[in-house]
Amino acid sequence: MTTHDQFQLHLQQLPPQPETAIETIFTLGNGHFGVRASNPLQGTQTAYRGQPGLLVNGFYDLTPLSYGENYFGYAQNSQTICLLPDPRLIIFEIDGIRSDEQPFDVKIVDKNLDMQTGVLLELFDVTTPTNKQFRLTLQSFASQDDTHFYVINYRISALNFTGPVTIIKQHAYIDQQIARDENDVRAAQRDMTLDRTFTSGQLPTMMISTRKSQLALLVAMTPLPDTNMPLTTIDDLPAYSRTLDLTSGLTVNFSFAYAIGNPHPLLDATQLLQDFTETAESRLAGQTFDALLASSQQRLVDFWRDSDIALHGDDTLAKAIRFNLFHLFQAAGRDGQTSIAAKGLTGTGYEGHYFWDAEMFMFPFFLYTQPKIAKSLLLYRYKTLPQAQQRARELAIKNGALYPWRTINGEEASSYYPAGTAQVHIDADIAYAVAAYVAVTDDQTFLLQAGYEMIIQTARFWLAYGHYTADGMDFVIEDVTGPDEYTAMVNNNYFTNRMAQYNLQIAVDYSTQLKHEHPEKLVALNVTTAEIDAFQRAATHMTLPYDDERRIKLQDDVSTTKPVWPIAETPRNQFPLLLHFHPMTIYHYQVNKQADTMMSDFLFPDDQDQAQLQRDFDYYEAITVHDSSLSRAIFGILAHRLHQPEKAYQYFTETAMMDLTNAQDNTGSGIHAANMGGSWLSLIFGFAGVALTADHQLRLDPRLPENWTSLRFQLQFRGRKLVFTVTQSALTCRLIAGKPLTIYLQHEPILITNESISHRFL
Amino acid sequence: MTTHDQFQLHLQQLPPQPETAIETIFTLGNGHFGVRASNPLQGTQTAYRGQPGLLVNGFYDLTPLSYGENYFGYAQNSQTICLLPDPRLIIFEIDGIRSDEQPFDVKIVDKNLDMQTGVLLELFDVTTPTNKQFRLTLQSFASQDDTHFYVINYRISALNFTGPVTIIKQHAYIDQQIARDENDVRAAQRDMTLDRTFTSGQLPTMMISTRKSQLALLVAMTPLPDTNMPLTTIDDLPAYSRTLDLTSGLTVNFSFAYAIGNPHPLLDATQLLQDFTETAESRLAGQTFDALLASSQQRLVDFWRDSDIALHGDDTLAKAIRFNLFHLFQAAGRDGQTSIAAKGLTGTGYEGHYFWDAEMFMFPFFLYTQPKIAKSLLLYRYKTLPQAQQRARELAIKNGALYPWRTINGEEASSYYPAGTAQVHIDADIAYAVAAYVAVTDDQTFLLQAGYEMIIQTARFWLAYGHYTADGMDFVIEDVTGPDEYTAMVNNNYFTNRMAQYNLQIAVDYSTQLKHEHPEKLVALNVTTAEIDAFQRAATHMTLPYDDERRIKLQDDVSTTKPVWPIAETPRNQFPLLLHFHPMTIYHYQVNKQADTMMSDFLFPDDQDQAQLQRDFDYYEAITVHDSSLSRAIFGILAHRLHQPEKAYQYFTETAMMDLTNAQDNTGSGIHAANMGGSWLSLIFGFAGVALTADHQLRLDPRLPENWTSLRFQLQFRGRKLVFTVTQSALTCRLIAGKPLTIYLQHEPILITNESISHRFL
Repeated sequence: MTTHDQFQLHLQQLPPQPETAIETIFTLGNGHFGVRASNPLQGTQTAYRGQPGLLVNGFYDLTPLSYGENYFGYAQNSQTICLLPDPRLIIFEIDGIRSDEQPFDVKIVDKNLDMQTGVLLELFDVTTPTNKQFRLTLQSFASQDDTHFYVINYRISALNFTGPVTIIKQHAYIDQQIARDENDVRAAQRDMTLDRTFTSGQLPTMMISTRKSQLALLVAMTPLPDTNMPLTTIDDLPAYSRTLDLTSGLTVNFSFAYAIGNPHPLLDATQLLQDFTETAESRLAGQTFDALLASSQQRLVDFWRDSDIALHGDDTLAKAIRFNLFHLFQAAGRDGQTSIAAKGLTGTGYEGHYFWDAEMFMFPFFLYTQPKIAKSLLLYRYKTLPQAQQRARELAIKNGALYPWRTINGEEASSYYPAGTAQVHIDADIAYAVAAYVAVTDDQTFLLQAGYEMIIQTARFWLAYGHYTADGMDFVIEDVTGPDEYTAMVNNNYFTNRMAQYNLQIAVDYSTQLKHEHPEKLVALNVTTAEIDAFQRAATHMTLPYDDERRIKLQDDVSTTKPVWPIAETPRNQFPLLLHFHPMTIYHYQVNKQADTMMSDFLFPDDQDQAQLQRDFDYYEAITVHDSSLSRAIFGILAHRLHQPEKAYQYFTETAMMDLTNAQDNTGSGIHAANMGGSWLSLIFGFAGVALTADHQLRLDPRLPENWTSLRFQLQFRGRKLVFTVTQSALTCRLIAGKPLTIYLQHEPILITNESISHRFL
Repeated sequence: MTTHDQFQLHLQQLPPQPETAIETIFTLGNGHFGVRASNPLQGTQTAYRGQPGLLVNGFYDLTPLSYGENYFGYAQNSQTICLLPDPRLIIFEIDGIRSDEQPFDVKIVDKNLDMQTGVLLELFDVTTPTNKQFRLTLQSFASQDDTHFYVINYRISALNFTGPVTIIKQHAYIDQQIARDENDVRAAQRDMTLDRTFTSGQLPTMMISTRKSQLALLVAMTPLPDTNMPLTTIDDLPAYSRTLDLTSGLTVNFSFAYAIGNPHPLLDATQLLQDFTETAESRLAGQTFDALLASSQQRLVDFWRDSDIALHGDDTLAKAIRFNLFHLFQAAGRDGQTSIAAKGLTGTGYEGHYFWDAEMFMFPFFLYTQPKIAKSLLLYRYKTLPQAQQRARELAIKNGALYPWRTINGEEASSYYPAGTAQVHIDADIAYAVAAYVAVTDDQTFLLQAGYEMIIQTARFWLAYGHYTADGMDFVIEDVTGPDEYTAMVNNNYFTNRMAQYNLQIAVDYSTQLKHEHPEKLVALNVTTAEIDAFQRAATHMTLPYDDERRIKLQDDVSTTKPVWPIAETPRNQFPLLLHFHPMTIYHYQVNKQADTMMSDFLFPDDQDQAQLQRDFDYYEAITVHDSSLSRAIFGILAHRLHQPEKAYQYFTETAMMDLTNAQDNTGSGIHAANMGGSWLSLIFGFAGVALTADHQLRLDPRLPENWTSLRFQLQFRGRKLVFTVTQSALTCRLIAGKPLTIYLQHEPILITNESISHRFL
């Protein structure tokens, strides 16, 4: 397989999938928006079983959460990402029949996503009700250069007739609703109505506004210069339309660009519209499909240069990895106003919410290969720090911040607090990401302007929410839920406490550092010596529960006392358990949805020796059902550390292939972005054995699956760009930017320079 | 104060109350229905701030419960008692103005409830928009003889005018909705629409049917013979109407009877209607207000003969007690199809649901003074045993039953399981009531036909839901919530485990008994020797957590480790805590809504010596805020046992006076029926010191508050009727029916015969 081929995703190479899953897999996006790869004709037909539409990062409406019993401090609104009219929509009128009024038969011939150019090529064979056939070819891309642009080219060639065809492009006018996801426990139907207004004129623009969140979004549409399609009005809406005389065998070809604005508060709509239209007009003036593509493609070239992973020895996995990295890039907000939703911008699953996985599963990929995007993700959390402080007040915490478990706008949107708000580890997850960012980039400006405040406000939460035992010897944290959502509201969840300890410790460390460098910062945040001492004392006395009999880390104070769920005796169709058993039943057993204590072993590799890790792994693997897509990657990495290559490989392949094979049967609702991040973690922190030492040095401990010949990847570290190639027996390193750097191969220091030097590790 | 006066409840004697509270306090009912004592003119006016209406026990509609996140096994429907058209409604037309179209000014002059006759006398001064004034006097009663009848007499006398007045009586036609109770956490607006159809003819009948529960209820209306008011049609509805010439100073007088049917499945409506009308017609034929009253009153005489408590030395408390007993009698279903709602039939609070308090707080009053009603209450639970078995299946319990935490029709209606379904102690509460019924009545037929099955099915639940620790030495019950709703989802709640132990033990005891007497019963229920052994083993090994350091019973495995809520520093307006703090905040502290472990000390007096009781009491009293109305009575009884008379007296008065003083400011939503039961418990199990010994003997240990001169009460016990009079120093006993019986005064056996004999105890 050529390198070119490894960046091509052909529909024909995938196992058969439902239409919604195909739409997800071939979604184009750029962190600002995503466009699902739906049927461009049948987008308005109710018989069509896909879910076409445009998703814009940060554009959501509020929908009231309802409770049978409504207690104080419950989240009052959900935030639901809006599924917007599909810009791919095209209407044909042939023999007096319009394709949006009477369905034309549309057959997918092929789809190919070129992940190097970002172009999605699609071939459809269309048959009219009067049996006229033509081929429709789409080429489209979401610009990676100016992320406001979506560009699409249509080609039409008649297959069995000659005659007139009218083509209409206008903003889709369907009433958009967020469809209910049957696999989603948040099953309340969201009857979300969007308001839309249109302007005619040079650049037909649609303003979409939300009812309750009061946001406005502008979408403008224009034919590109090589397109000869005059502006008119159809059904009272501005439209481009032209009647062509198709001749069998000849091809007609035209292109459109969409400018998709940023979400704005719905205030001065007229001014907003004017500014937007002027900007879009000027940016698009004289542009062509190819010119726009060239700019976009350049950004993709840069992306792959810095972020690609080349795996040799397994072409299927090699492509799956690139597919995952491409989707991560498409998913991540880059504007400091948005983050990465659980489904990226590929579907409405989880209502488009951001969770902890943005920081814990996806952030590391950006941190080590696209640090600007990593910073942008953290800035989103900084921007929403006021909401997190307010949320802490609602939980009677007078000082500090509690980040929301699920959110778009920074407010809590979890309606089942035992598996939502109670996952207070989100605070430490964010603090951990901040510290990792500062350690890997050495971006002291960010630390001073944002990161330190986030670390302090989250550390304060732990001090207030935890307390000391009566003898004053142990700091305990009660009534929390760890990552494992099959256990809820426990005392001293190991992962939570360990992460809180880290959060408190870095609050001490950065306070100690900044006390000398920038004492005014501590004064501004009212950080006193007494408070630093309190952080240190709580960190030092943090309870980390341990089962002395089994000699394993305890998931929580009493986790091993419950009976073990009979996993082997549970029929496969009873998974995921949460769809088949009441929470009281599930909580009543030792059964884990996902890695929990093992997340701690993963994140803090120096906490335990191999024997401890092995005991923890054996115990928790046996009670984990991996009903969460966040689970397998972690177990796989730890299996690697434990020198269990078959197991590591098995977990990895399941991780890497999850969406391409629709393994959880819900890819239609969107990609499993965290799992994609997990596939990067598996390769870099797993097979390559990358880790930060306690004193922030880079360490590698590579070991490839036996059928792989090599793994090549880049990392950025403190201003350097490093290229690594791992083979079965050797690591080759080269510095391609920045000053020479000493890293560790296992425990051996090696100096990396711009000469490529190989080091045997076997 | 004469005895007669002690049965009169005068509005003038009460502290000022909002109109809704007055409506509740003066509600008339008979276990089948309740009629709120609302303004009879303004029942249809939106400006009126009362909540008029009729409540029928067991007549409810289903309303969908909605969840932001909907998990498997969640209750899908709430059941909401229907607030039905008010039969008190009367319409006047004066000077062409109808009182239901334009409000007349209505001033309450007085209300008096005669608890001996059951008659409510009400005086209103009415002023028309044209300034004509008349006095309206109502006398009404809910028949205690035939509980389908509600009878009302209206008297009208002009105060400042002479002239024509048209009077209209017809079935109220307002659109009934269940109003939202601001104090109720189940805040979802219940838009419950009832369908109604009318028949004209001799007996105008309204058929009310529910949309989702598909129940029908018939209500017929007829003037009584002394009433001269012809049947006509007004606004297309059958109505009685007459125009009178009122002369200042003279009185016009007329009476109506309502026949209120039983809830029926909405099947053959025509047949239902015909049967009902014929029955009602024949039962009411030739009846007068006085004749109907006489029959009703006789039943009340019987009630007071068996159930009265005469307290001498405090007239206010004496009347409050009778008020409470009268309301308990009005609240309790007597037909084996219904139970006692938390608010009786006086209001829509808690949606008319039955809870554990029916068995644990109200049942004992009926058991010892109205055992037929007690049996009827247990038959309701037996009737709903199939639903409880089904519910256990939903929680993956293959064998056994789990009764619902809140219900009308026997299905679970709690939408917040941590303070709902998780209160699995409901099972043992019901089993405890069954055993108490059998012990006190010796009703072996009930045991055989219903009680034993209930005990077995609930015992099976414990066996399945609990489990043994790894060493097999301790039986533990995890993930439950005890009575205290400020703590949720804990392991080994003391009260729950102790009650479960009792449930298992009586399953063994009755199985052992019936194995010899009725082996076929065990076969029918598939009770094997192995299962009986398993019950015994679980009971024997039941974990009853204990704090060795503090030497107190532990509320749950870890209850004493949390910090204590700063009760004294919490502003009064922050109570009840559940309306001002997130559950995660409340659960994070040691703070009890109500008696929890103390309920166990109360129910099992022989479990602990005085020193243990004192330690438990001191510890738990300090962390209890009594935000539940079920709390004070229990603490008062235990204070009495601990010889703390001031404290016992204080708790008792707060209990006895709660609704008369609207102490919790929510009497408008209905009485606190459990608290009323608690006032009986306080007197009998508290001040009189009544208890059953382990071998089912009756024991008294009386001690009166120092300002009381005597307390007289009746008890029924194993076929005997006993009268007791307690003074400051002596107990006088007499048998008025049944064979002589030996009871214990403290530890001294005394034989009770039909001679009245006094025994000094001081």
